[in-house]
Amino acid sequence: MRALIIGRFQPFHNGHAFLVKKFKENELIFAIGSAYESYTFENPFTAGERYEMIYEAMLEMQIKKFFIVPVPDINRYGVYAKHVEDLVPSFDFVISNNKLIKELFIREGYEVRETELFNRKECQGKVIRRKIANNEPWEHLVPSRVANFIKKIGGEERIRKLSNFF
Amino acid sequence: MRALIIGRFQPFHNGHAFLVKKFKENELIFAIGSAYESYTFENPFTAGERYEMIYEAMLEMQIKKFFIVPVPDINRYGVYAKHVEDLVPSFDFVISNNKLIKELFIREGYEVRETELFNRKECQGKVIRRKIANNEPWEHLVPSRVANFIKKIGGEERIRKLSNFF
Amino acid sequence: MRALIIGRFQPFHNGHAFLVKKFKENELIFAIGSAYESYTFENPFTAGERYEMIYEAMLEMQIKKFFIVPVPDINRYGVYAKHVEDLVPSFDFVISNNKLIKELFIREGYEVRETELFNRKECQGKVIRRKIANNEPWEHLVPSRVANFIKKIGGEERIRKLSNFF
Amino acid sequence: MRALIIGRFQPFHNGHAFLVKKFKENELIFAIGSAYESYTFENPFTAGERYEMIYEAMLEMQIKKFFIVPVPDINRYGVYAKHVEDLVPSFDFVISNNKLIKELFIREGYEVRETELFNRKECQGKVIRRKIANNEPWEHLVPSRVANFIKKIGGEERIRKLSNFF
Amino acid sequence: MRALIIGRFQPFHNGHAFLVKKFKENELIFAIGSAYESYTFENPFTAGERYEMIYEAMLEMQIKKFFIVPVPDINRYGVYAKHVEDLVPSFDFVISNNKLIKELFIREGYEVRETELFNRKECQGKVIRRKIANNEPWEHLVPSRVANFIKKIGGEERIRKLSNFF
Amino acid sequence: MRALIIGRFQPFHNGHAFLVKKFKENELIFAIGSAYESYTFENPFTAGERYEMIYEAMLEMQIKKFFIVPVPDINRYGVYAKHVEDLVPSFDFVISNNKLIKELFIREGYEVRETELFNRKECQGKVIRRKIANNEPWEHLVPSRVANFIKKIGGEERIRKLSNFF
Repeated sequence: MRALIIGRFQPFHNGHAFLVKKFKENELIFAIGSAYESYTFENPFTAGERYEMIYEAMLEMQIKKFFIVPVPDINRYGVYAKHVEDLVPSFDFVISNNKLIKELFIREGYEVRETELFNRKECQGKVIRRKIANNEPWEHLVPSRVANFIKKIGGEERIRKLSNFF
Repeated sequence: MRALIIGRFQPFHNGHAFLVKKFKENELIFAIGSAYESYTFENPFTAGERYEMIYEAMLEMQIKKFFIVPVPDINRYGVYAKHVEDLVPSFDFVISNNKLIKELFIREGYEVRETELFNRKECQGKVIRRKIANNEPWEHLVPSRVANFIKKIGGEERIRKLSNFF
Repeated sequence: MRALIIGRFQPFHNGHAFLVKKFKENELIFAIGSAYESYTFENPFTAGERYEMIYEAMLEMQIKKFFIVPVPDINRYGVYAKHVEDLVPSFDFVISNNKLIKELFIREGYEVRETELFNRKECQGKVIRRKIANNEPWEHLVPSRVANFIKKIGGEERIRKLSNFF
Repeated sequence: MRALIIGRFQPFHNGHAFLVKKFKENELIFAIGSAYESYTFENPFTAGERYEMIYEAMLEMQIKKFFIVPVPDINRYGVYAKHVEDLVPSFDFVISNNKLIKELFIREGYEVRETELFNRKECQGKVIRRKIANNEPWEHLVPSRVANFIKKIGGEERIRKLSNFF
Repeated sequence: MRALIIGRFQPFHNGHAFLVKKFKENELIFAIGSAYESYTFENPFTAGERYEMIYEAMLEMQIKKFFIVPVPDINRYGVYAKHVEDLVPSFDFVISNNKLIKELFIREGYEVRETELFNRKECQGKVIRRKIANNEPWEHLVPSRVANFIKKIGGEERIRKLSNFF
Repeated sequence: MRALIIGRFQPFHNGHAFLVKKFKENELIFAIGSAYESYTFENPFTAGERYEMIYEAMLEMQIKKFFIVPVPDINRYGVYAKHVEDLVPSFDFVISNNKLIKELFIREGYEVRETELFNRKECQGKVIRRKIANNEPWEHLVPSRVANFIKKIGGEERIRKLSNFF
């Protein structure tokens, strides 16, 4: 069975990794939402960079079969689920705790499964970006290969700069 | 070294497979062009379906590391190379015989490598679509897992219908 | 004489109905603004659903001749009036108290008539949506056929859900 | 039961009128396709003008309940049916002989009914536009109120001009 | 009095120069149409490059006061004139022999003046591009500073390449 | 050497004029950002009006060679620098204190020069718009020809109206 996970992955963190382990019996499709957004504090990384982060995480977790698909926003919730469906490999159910995502995919006839969350206090994109901006330790909240990738592309410095001008 | 291949993959065929073998020392990124196009004779398959075809071909060819990225058209050649760069993992060179693609990426400072072509007479998307439309044998022109996938999703019938109304 | 009324109609309420009665000598064109928006607390209903609401209200009010036209946003006020003009039947004047709408249509040479408002404290889309979200009585603020339609399509539950995640 | 008819209505003609009569037991929704197109020989009339034409025809045919909805193109067949669904009142089946429209709505789970055609040789938009361009009689091919409307807005002269520069 | 000239200026040629001389009593606004198009045989130069060509031509012709404005296509003739009006300085009349441009601006209430043409056989963008592609002399058909600019940016070679793959 | 200045110029003010003087050895390109925005308090003037303001200022400052280019937003920072580059004449460096603009152009390989600012307390678009809205003196903060232009087009009244409904 294939499962769709929609996120912005800014960055991919241990909350996502927890989810991957929990659904390891399934083939996972990662839909990278807001794919055209980048260079803002909310969305610092390009879709291409987020693609690599997820890929690195899968290597680290030794996941063999998975799909990564950048999905641009279309700003029309009424057709959003169809828009995603058009761009990604076919899937059997959706994994999401986001009430809007849930509503939109249920309306299209999909099953949506909620999950418990892992260390929700810290494992959130905005918390991690804030820690990076404040020079606090953040590396323990993401897979190590993701941390390395972020450092390699100068992601810390980028986030610090972006945190000042938005 | 990572190499970018841009195509529409309507469908993925043995010409593409030949290329993959030729560059098997490289990590390949497949950019699926015209990702929003589907259900026309020129572009019968959705981006999601084309993603699966390429994935199936990589399985068959036992390629372990590769990246697949749907890329919507933006209809502005002046910024197209940047648009692709924004959506895909970083790459070192481009593989293309298309003179426009070549021009656009060289202009951005990329190396573009041309390649010899494999059975160009038959291994072209439009030739294969035409064969399918005409009920001629076509399966030998694509990897078997791709042929199976196309049959499974009713692709032959779809192409036959589409060939009549465009 | 034909009059244009621009609104988002989320939902059509008695304030709108009051206006319709006041201008009952005129043929009315209802332009449904932000037609591509839906499934947000601000814009819970699709353009198609809003179309039906207005239609139901007209039935209830026994209005015979009227026009309903969904109008997508274009996010360019400098050409907005022209954009509307392009999509709707020709009209003689605009009914609006919105200062921006007024400015934009006067600039295009149209007469814009302001009107007194009916029970402005309650008869506003956002007040009604808030009441629905809070499980307070709201049905008396819209024509009964509109209330029935909203219930039939599960609109109350949808608004309640949407009020939680925006 | 409600039926959806998708057309460009450039102009509304007796072929459309025939269809309306044939399905007179149903409430009809007219989706005006390519709503943003106008002032070309292929699409001479604005969406607003086409809206009025259909309205005039309904008056002439004494149809009481019907819906008219301009629908902009989105150039993505993979989500087109959903896009239409989002903008129009809910419907039970689609009336169409267009193979692509048929394919797209069947895929979304809708029933699509084909119909015999009325005087297909002459009752086609492009044939009528060509007649107008050539100063041949055309008025007998459309409802009289439609012919009057076209004349009133200078439609004949517009089509003649447009036929020269495309 | 200010006059608007809409063209694609691919490239600016002596036909344009002739027009400039003829209307030298007027302040001219050059609207560069299809501003987002480039790197095709039909539109080889970017808007920025076309801006410079016009600027160079004005220097050569010693015109002191003029305005150059890139105008992206919007693919909606019904609002096109307004779109242009929104982007350019205010103007009093339009200079055009193009019947569609004429129709669209007259409809907005503008005066449109037609002009005789200069050496129409050769002074057309496509004729000049074709000459460049065929290695025939073309420099005499454009102002010398425009010819120099085209050579400096490698425009001849670009056009030759583009002529082969479209 | 040519320098690019990106601003919204709502309106052009003495802070911009200060910059122009400081870089008077250079040819300046003014990129009018958010070119499609107008008739909001944040962006009251159309791109065409802003074009004229800059032009008037250049006349007053007796600058002979300069370029003005309206640039629509594309809402993709990842390709924004390329988008600007595509629309404006070629340039050698960028003048900007905006950290995001700086980041985006440095990433494309451009030099970005910061500058001291002139009377930053008052010489800001929003401060000037606020003064106009409040009927406070503002004319001394912009070149006189710009003040005259704003008055001539009714800009003060427009800003006052817009300040009330946003």
